Amino acid sequence: MLTLDFTNCLATHVGSHGLDPALLAPGSEAHEAVAAHTKRLAGSRGTGWERWRELPFEPMRSQHVGAVKKIVEQCRGRFDTMVVLGIGGSALGNIALQSALNPPTWNLIESGKRGGPRLFVVDNVDPAYFASVLDFCQAAPGGLSKTLFNVVSKSGETAETAAQFMVIRDLLSKALGKDYAKNIVAVTDPAKGTMRQICEREGFTTLPVPDGVGGRFSVLSPVGLFSAAMCGIDIDALLTGAADMDKACSNPDLHQNPAAMLATLLVELGTSKGKTNHVLMPYSNALYLLADWYRQLWAESLGKEHDLQGNRVNAGFTPIKALGTTDQHSQVQLYREGPNDKVIGLIEVESFERDVTIPTGLGVEAIGYLEGRSMSFLLNAEKRATEYALLESQRPNFTLKFPKVDAYHVGQFINLWQIATAYAGLLLNVDAYDQPAVELGKQATFGLMGRKGYEKHLTSVDRALGGDRHVIGP
Amino acid sequence: MLTLDFTNCLATHVGSHGLDPALLAPGSEAHEAVAAHTKRLAGSRGTGWERWRELPFEPMRSQHVGAVKKIVEQCRGRFDTMVVLGIGGSALGNIALQSALNPPTWNLIESGKRGGPRLFVVDNVDPAYFASVLDFCQAAPGGLSKTLFNVVSKSGETAETAAQFMVIRDLLSKALGKDYAKNIVAVTDPAKGTMRQICEREGFTTLPVPDGVGGRFSVLSPVGLFSAAMCGIDIDALLTGAADMDKACSNPDLHQNPAAMLATLLVELGTSKGKTNHVLMPYSNALYLLADWYRQLWAESLGKEHDLQGNRVNAGFTPIKALGTTDQHSQVQLYREGPNDKVIGLIEVESFERDVTIPTGLGVEAIGYLEGRSMSFLLNAEKRATEYALLESQRPNFTLKFPKVDAYHVGQFINLWQIATAYAGLLLNVDAYDQPAVELGKQATFGLMGRKGYEKHLTSVDRALGGDRHVIGP
Repeated sequence: MLTLDFTNCLATHVGSHGLDPALLAPGSEAHEAVAAHTKRLAGSRGTGWERWRELPFEPMRSQHVGAVKKIVEQCRGRFDTMVVLGIGGSALGNIALQSALNPPTWNLIESGKRGGPRLFVVDNVDPAYFASVLDFCQAAPGGLSKTLFNVVSKSGETAETAAQFMVIRDLLSKALGKDYAKNIVAVTDPAKGTMRQICEREGFTTLPVPDGVGGRFSVLSPVGLFSAAMCGIDIDALLTGAADMDKACSNPDLHQNPAAMLATLLVELGTSKGKTNHVLMPYSNALYLLADWYRQLWAESLGKEHDLQGNRVNAGFTPIKALGTTDQHSQVQLYREGPNDKVIGLIEVESFERDVTIPTGLGVEAIGYLEGRSMSFLLNAEKRATEYALLESQRPNFTLKFPKVDAYHVGQFINLWQIATAYAGLLLNVDAYDQPAVELGKQATFGLMGRKGYEKHLTSVDRALGGDRHVIGP
Repeated sequence: MLTLDFTNCLATHVGSHGLDPALLAPGSEAHEAVAAHTKRLAGSRGTGWERWRELPFEPMRSQHVGAVKKIVEQCRGRFDTMVVLGIGGSALGNIALQSALNPPTWNLIESGKRGGPRLFVVDNVDPAYFASVLDFCQAAPGGLSKTLFNVVSKSGETAETAAQFMVIRDLLSKALGKDYAKNIVAVTDPAKGTMRQICEREGFTTLPVPDGVGGRFSVLSPVGLFSAAMCGIDIDALLTGAADMDKACSNPDLHQNPAAMLATLLVELGTSKGKTNHVLMPYSNALYLLADWYRQLWAESLGKEHDLQGNRVNAGFTPIKALGTTDQHSQVQLYREGPNDKVIGLIEVESFERDVTIPTGLGVEAIGYLEGRSMSFLLNAEKRATEYALLESQRPNFTLKFPKVDAYHVGQFINLWQIATAYAGLLLNVDAYDQPAVELGKQATFGLMGRKGYEKHLTSVDRALGGDRHVIGP
């Protein structure tokens, strides 16, 4: 199991910047709140927007894993490259799983020696970036016929993914003719919507985005599972890890429930101690992009103007990703001496699958202390040194420890944060499942793109951004 | 030239969350301060820690470019892969230049068709990551003999880089024998220090880290130029862009000087309006990692406990990188509805080298508005829509516009932020060139690694992190 050490969030260790342990003790308001919220979550899990909570359990689990593996089997040997077209919750989980569980050189390894296709997750409409990826797919041996495109969009109306899809559909059908549909797998609404219509018309293979599973809670559904399984990731272990973490996080005792404790610490430090920036800093390159996935979950779920009663609260915290040791040489100066407005979550890996010994024999005194040590020993010494240095500056921090980086523990990590987010929503009294502020930008985009019915948005944009501008430059 | 549009930072556009334009007008305190600081910077440039300012100018420019190009010429055709070993300022610039100016698929392109070697910049001591890169280098055709290692460390005593160096020196010398030194180019102190000693003993080719150029201001020195030139980047254009930006940023008139204006806006909004989180959000994948380079510059230069008179101020701002449109689906909900504690810097690219047309012919009404448009049009419409949406929520923001992404404009961008940082240091009255808070962690690491003379630090760490810990988990 992952462990959570939150000692350095307490006033005993960081003075007035930390929480009084009495605040968390049995009988305290926070302790009672967690018990009540746990009961509430046990009652609502699997319903409404909390359907994601059941993804690691039967019957959804077997349905999804079965459907995913069937398609993976059909694709085996047919594709050298896989391109995921999606954005936000339809991409961040895919990127994080690949980065956490396959080597960073995955795409460079020869086709026969990898456990699956090369993987690109194109989560933007940057034309230079997209064109480079398409160039590569076309120039690689076998070209587009050996490329699988995985379109991930519940509605099919997300502008970025729709645009990408239209481009690759055209390219594929020109290159492969009528059979082009065999190079597309769509993950979309099982029953309705624009992408579902297209899939039925064109005959694409599909996997479901289950009802009641919002984008940022969808990584353990076919949204995240399909590309992971294609690339040889053990999705069974991933889901087992998530399920085991769910059990730990169903405990009504704050001191036994890591998700409830994470949520309580971060919400309390954020609202009563001004620690509104929440850094996640893995001491592991593989885990770095999980912090990107966390960024969406934490920002979009909790960053809300109104509480559930409609009061204006401007709730939320700013999630920040950092990387140890790298950011010791970039951010730690600020973290120690700048405004004390952060909680820093350190992630430690106890045992690395691969280690590197620093050889003896250079014989230079100033760096002789490194000789014969392992690189993981150095990495973890630096983590411990940073923890100590943060403590000396009274900067609240906690440590999440992975026994090792594998699918089982990554599944735990994902569900730990998902469940912590559910608790944090309740503690902040906001809707963790909507994203109302995203709408205006979408409508303005429609207006600017000339979509019928959105003319008034174009007018509003032009009015707001028009007039005399203050510009320096030619 | 890059342009800076700061209209949306003003109270006329974001109400009380913005700055009163009178505050910036000729004769205002801010306007006079910039005039005085410009004079001060003109007097001190090229001396002390402000020597970086002269990197794009003669005589340093020709010295560095000449030395770099000579070595690039010697290396031509000899190496398929280049591995930079460095961390912080010895890596972030290298990564940013490569990402900005070469395609994302660079390492996947066949050797003959690239304009230089594959590039890895290994800025961590994660053993799994490092081992994967070394595996790749060893397994590639030609193996280590075709791999160039570029060690970047002024002193040679940075633990991470020293450890990496010791590993590759051992591997290379075992694989290549006495000739192994030909596969190493070190960028280090030209006269003294541990790495200099090693270079002389072992006969490595070297390039200088010039005196008075701190790590985070070193990208335009051989630290950043060598790997860039090896990978075919036009370092002359890069430096010309930097030099041209220097000229624009030497103007004592706040309203003509983009660096002074950026610094003034961010410092004023940060200190008087509570906007302490400074987001940089390029609408361009290529420019995304320049935001990582900016993170170090802005955090480490300004995040200071004490001002120049020794008063405790805990100055500084938290730099945050984001990516448009991608983070519209992750962070914009928070940026619009969460705490109004940010200034959001949007980066727009006017013209992309490559564009992609969204084809006609799908014939699905809901997404028909995309047909026939270019992807760059969509990307920039989304940028404009986000700017509008932020404005509607009274969130201060500004736009930096690149006419296009090339070495010349990237050079401008780099120097714009470097000079803005120098101004911001003066405005905040802090030393922008030191990083005192990094020391304690280094010493604690030495203690934990068993380095002689650091035993008391080990004791301190063990005492601080020992005792009863509050841990959830087995």
